[in-house]
Amino acid sequence: MTGVVPRVAVVGAGYWGPNLIRNFLASPDWDLVAVCDLDEARARRVIGNRTAVDVETSVDRLLARPDLDAVAIATPARTHASLALSAFAAGKHVLVEKPLAESAADAELMIDSARRAGRVLMIDHTYCFTPAARYIRDTIEAGDLGDVLYVDSTRINLGLVQPDVDVFWDLAPHDLSILDFVLPGGLRPAAVSAVGADPLGTGRACIGYLTMPLPSGGSAHVNVNWLSPTKIRQVVIGGSRRTLIWDDLNPQQRISVYDRGVDLTGPAADVGERTARAVSYRMGDMVAPALGEREALAAMVAEFAAAITERREPSTDGTAGLRVLSILEATSASLAAAGAPAPVQDHSASMIKEYA
Amino acid sequence: MTGVVPRVAVVGAGYWGPNLIRNFLASPDWDLVAVCDLDEARARRVIGNRTAVDVETSVDRLLARPDLDAVAIATPARTHASLALSAFAAGKHVLVEKPLAESAADAELMIDSARRAGRVLMIDHTYCFTPAARYIRDTIEAGDLGDVLYVDSTRINLGLVQPDVDVFWDLAPHDLSILDFVLPGGLRPAAVSAVGADPLGTGRACIGYLTMPLPSGGSAHVNVNWLSPTKIRQVVIGGSRRTLIWDDLNPQQRISVYDRGVDLTGPAADVGERTARAVSYRMGDMVAPALGEREALAAMVAEFAAAITERREPSTDGTAGLRVLSILEATSASLAAAGAPAPVQDHSASMIKEYA
Amino acid sequence: MTGVVPRVAVVGAGYWGPNLIRNFLASPDWDLVAVCDLDEARARRVIGNRTAVDVETSVDRLLARPDLDAVAIATPARTHASLALSAFAAGKHVLVEKPLAESAADAELMIDSARRAGRVLMIDHTYCFTPAARYIRDTIEAGDLGDVLYVDSTRINLGLVQPDVDVFWDLAPHDLSILDFVLPGGLRPAAVSAVGADPLGTGRACIGYLTMPLPSGGSAHVNVNWLSPTKIRQVVIGGSRRTLIWDDLNPQQRISVYDRGVDLTGPAADVGERTARAVSYRMGDMVAPALGEREALAAMVAEFAAAITERREPSTDGTAGLRVLSILEATSASLAAAGAPAPVQDHSASMIKEYA
Amino acid sequence: MTGVVPRVAVVGAGYWGPNLIRNFLASPDWDLVAVCDLDEARARRVIGNRTAVDVETSVDRLLARPDLDAVAIATPARTHASLALSAFAAGKHVLVEKPLAESAADAELMIDSARRAGRVLMIDHTYCFTPAARYIRDTIEAGDLGDVLYVDSTRINLGLVQPDVDVFWDLAPHDLSILDFVLPGGLRPAAVSAVGADPLGTGRACIGYLTMPLPSGGSAHVNVNWLSPTKIRQVVIGGSRRTLIWDDLNPQQRISVYDRGVDLTGPAADVGERTARAVSYRMGDMVAPALGEREALAAMVAEFAAAITERREPSTDGTAGLRVLSILEATSASLAAAGAPAPVQDHSASMIKEYA
Repeated sequence: MTGVVPRVAVVGAGYWGPNLIRNFLASPDWDLVAVCDLDEARARRVIGNRTAVDVETSVDRLLARPDLDAVAIATPARTHASLALSAFAAGKHVLVEKPLAESAADAELMIDSARRAGRVLMIDHTYCFTPAARYIRDTIEAGDLGDVLYVDSTRINLGLVQPDVDVFWDLAPHDLSILDFVLPGGLRPAAVSAVGADPLGTGRACIGYLTMPLPSGGSAHVNVNWLSPTKIRQVVIGGSRRTLIWDDLNPQQRISVYDRGVDLTGPAADVGERTARAVSYRMGDMVAPALGEREALAAMVAEFAAAITERREPSTDGTAGLRVLSILEATSASLAAAGAPAPVQDHSASMIKEYA
Repeated sequence: MTGVVPRVAVVGAGYWGPNLIRNFLASPDWDLVAVCDLDEARARRVIGNRTAVDVETSVDRLLARPDLDAVAIATPARTHASLALSAFAAGKHVLVEKPLAESAADAELMIDSARRAGRVLMIDHTYCFTPAARYIRDTIEAGDLGDVLYVDSTRINLGLVQPDVDVFWDLAPHDLSILDFVLPGGLRPAAVSAVGADPLGTGRACIGYLTMPLPSGGSAHVNVNWLSPTKIRQVVIGGSRRTLIWDDLNPQQRISVYDRGVDLTGPAADVGERTARAVSYRMGDMVAPALGEREALAAMVAEFAAAITERREPSTDGTAGLRVLSILEATSASLAAAGAPAPVQDHSASMIKEYA
Repeated sequence: MTGVVPRVAVVGAGYWGPNLIRNFLASPDWDLVAVCDLDEARARRVIGNRTAVDVETSVDRLLARPDLDAVAIATPARTHASLALSAFAAGKHVLVEKPLAESAADAELMIDSARRAGRVLMIDHTYCFTPAARYIRDTIEAGDLGDVLYVDSTRINLGLVQPDVDVFWDLAPHDLSILDFVLPGGLRPAAVSAVGADPLGTGRACIGYLTMPLPSGGSAHVNVNWLSPTKIRQVVIGGSRRTLIWDDLNPQQRISVYDRGVDLTGPAADVGERTARAVSYRMGDMVAPALGEREALAAMVAEFAAAITERREPSTDGTAGLRVLSILEATSASLAAAGAPAPVQDHSASMIKEYA
Repeated sequence: MTGVVPRVAVVGAGYWGPNLIRNFLASPDWDLVAVCDLDEARARRVIGNRTAVDVETSVDRLLARPDLDAVAIATPARTHASLALSAFAAGKHVLVEKPLAESAADAELMIDSARRAGRVLMIDHTYCFTPAARYIRDTIEAGDLGDVLYVDSTRINLGLVQPDVDVFWDLAPHDLSILDFVLPGGLRPAAVSAVGADPLGTGRACIGYLTMPLPSGGSAHVNVNWLSPTKIRQVVIGGSRRTLIWDDLNPQQRISVYDRGVDLTGPAADVGERTARAVSYRMGDMVAPALGEREALAAMVAEFAAAITERREPSTDGTAGLRVLSILEATSASLAAAGAPAPVQDHSASMIKEYA
């Protein structure tokens, strides 16, 4: 790195690129030197007038620039792996939009390539950089919720029906990356069950339900839907001590922690042919903690810079992206098998997660 | 029938019985002559002081009374069938709390017995008597929603963990009876998939997800949970023309009908290896229709009286209860098979639904 | 008193009477012996069939009954004083619906008459018997909110436009009785300002705003409205330490206590021609305390019985009703004076509030 | 004008300036050439790196630039008049943040100066450029609400206690400018009543209530508060035909139109000493219209450009700013007089509102 702050270029000025561009421009940790898009007019429109940011239309020319330390890739998923490999070959650090790649195999190549090149590979799991996600991770780690008994995550919207992916691949990476971030040890189910529906005949699932076991014996459920007229972004995390609800569309009360639940109070007893336990109910207070309102993308680009400067893995590294991808691949397999559980391939032997 | 209005007794003064008692007492269509419970003190407490309603502690003595036309059975499910058969044998009409019986086989016996006795068998699917459910049935029948593409029903609460049934048998009858009531032709899936969890180790599922196909190619999803700190009772019905949301806990706006959705606009096209269709988005108004606020149980006891007087099937008859029961039995089978689809037994050949 | 529990009659079977009747019937503390109404059919309809409660159509005959210890008066406000005086003359205890009387002068007569007769005079300030109001009184008394800086109470609805009173006399007694109950020392403003509007030309204010000073230098504001299409029942109590919001239409979270506010941090300084103080902001957590869900009227009739049995003043006694009435009279005076402040007559010299 | 699009500079890079800068930069209708602030570092921070926008620290030098057509003034209110007069003297068009000036007298000078110079004077009444405000104006104009019977506007927040103005001058301009925009003929009350409180002793009102008559005989009420722990931005407009609620913090349902209300149904009748009218109640549907989500400031800067190009008055012109200012001055007078109504000075003789 030659300058005071690292120099970055954004590749892809379409749907998500403008958000990255805005945050790199506003960040004291970065110098945005170029935006690269095949459509030059679109790139110019995004950076606006009175700017000294360059527009590039060739990735090769972009990666050949010596005044560039990193690239942020905001192109369709099928292009992620080849772009990232080229960037590592050119000695650049890489930030990739979710999902990390089209396949777990590609993702492993990317992770391996980054390690060989000694460069940072970061996945933009944006929600992990919200104050809410950080609060949840900390409160679970501190034991405030007790054991995680169940998770119910809903992400529905009148969303853009994507031409190349189904609703699981479009929306569930958000839920999965959040769970991977907040659950101790990450999200590593042995198998998943998925059912979906395509009632309009669009050619891919527009409605999806995904269930996977949790270490406690409970389950995590994800409900994603492109056809809902209302928008919901909610994660419920039920614990043995408290239950937390994250309602991301309620800025005045994003997180509520309920001291309400069911406790086992007696030994196992026979009930008819079953064994049952006596229970009691806690009906305590609810606390909505004060959270800051920092924009998640601002924190994300700051972490990307910090990982480069401090020569360490970012908090959402390639292996986090790979874990999410492995679950998505199993999801597709279960969907094809009409909901029968499909195993999630375990990459943990070769890919050890290293937290910053 | 000998009196001006039919005479009824409520059997069971426990959890739900008091609600029936209150509504029979307030109804101009009924004369409540007795409450029957093994626990005489409980029965007396429920009917209160200064009353001329009798208390009975023996069902046999109750059914032998000549001044009685009908009984309402609000006892545990395992007793429903034998009580109903005795009542029919005594020439009484019968109202039964949900679920109709412990098994579909018992339910068929009850239906058959009612027909032979020429008496009314009604199931108390309470929600079907709300102004909201009636509005939904009418608006679907009128074609206002178009084809039903998906249903998403959520019924979660910090509920009483039941000693003898799991969360599906406790809560899902509400969702299933509503869907059976509002969907044209009733709810008759060929199979269901169910996954559940018992993270506390209570001996039965406390969290459950149930999915079944709809004729349109879409699906109905039911989410039931005894461990949730917050209470949700919501049914989303996504249609090809409009989508309706019933939020039963919002008395100021129980039903919202959204003119928002996705429309197919082009012919099928090849996208990669798939076939896809071009889509457009409707972003129209939302209408919350004015609904009356009549108590559902008041309408339910009125319908019970009307069916008796008019010598016809009630709008929620035994076959409706049987359809719900058949789905519950398939749910238990799928749950035992780790979510693999389980077929729903079809009783429609022998049991033709007759709407009033 | 001759029986095990006191015997009561309800006078007036119209709007509110049925609620009293239901609660007296269900109460273990009372024996409801009669309902009195000029309209016999209405009285019979309210008590229902199979009952041993008497119907009376003459107050004189009712009060002459020896098997009666108390009466609950639920008739129009203009009849309260004469009915109560007759009841005290007959040796009965008296519960009166709000407002206590048509004028403060009448209310003083009632209070005086009760004392001379040695009988209980209680006002049905129903909201004071909710778990929420009791929580608020306790939390203010414990100092959790600090000094009460402001109160903002909103009670709007598409309400029944009353033939004989304006919106202040109809709705504001609720707000005023709550404030009188929760504020230390009761609600004793020296003056009030009221503005109102009658945009439909009904002959009385249908919209009203009432403001009065608080001891802290802050103010209490009451917003009442008969024309609102939506229903709001909300009380905000802003304190120097915390601010509490009571949303009575949200049963899942009636009370929220916010540790958010503005603190003075510096000495007074000159700002232009004014004196100003440096401030800082607290942005802490919100807590929604767990509250019971007991019906307020059940607690109210229990308190009426307890006051009689224990020969003491009830927690909402005649002087509480008088304080509310004095503010209502000043409200009418201010309204007639186009919003100019009108003094509230002080009855505290003769009428010392005695808490139970 | 010499360029293809007009060239503008923003004066003041403090609280609101960055929002203007961002919108001028993103607008196809403008070329942002400079940002002017006494604090050069602050100005540089706001425009960011890699920019060709100039920073100026002297207004005189800025106004002397020939490559400038317009200025947007986002400085404290007390500086607005002198800055605007200098800008007109230099031949520039002027956009001013609210309030237009410190006094109605200054505002009249500004309006007069703009006319003599033949330049546009626009006030940034931002809310008037929201899709919601435009919808409301159109629906009132079309007669959908009938006569406006009452307005209830609430704007409360844990806001910044301002050093130089009270809560009325800080927040009420939003409510007043909205009402001026949507009410036919603008907001022209003859008098206003205001009460306020300063319970913390900050030296100025932190809580305020403002009431003014409407032509229908009803009233408009404005509730502003800097001390509220929760944020509310709500305007209720009660009409004789329908009532509209604008909840600006609910992006999924900003506007709700209720077909609910009270209708007069009979002739006037004597009720006691008063005249009353029989009434009935409408309980119809609610409609939430689909609205676009265009950022208000983007529409505002577009209107500024259009007014210049088309040589016409903008939709929020100086006289709109003057009307708001006149009401604020009367508010201060009423506040000083303990709530007694204070007359609003009428400037309409000299200042005729001219809509575009």
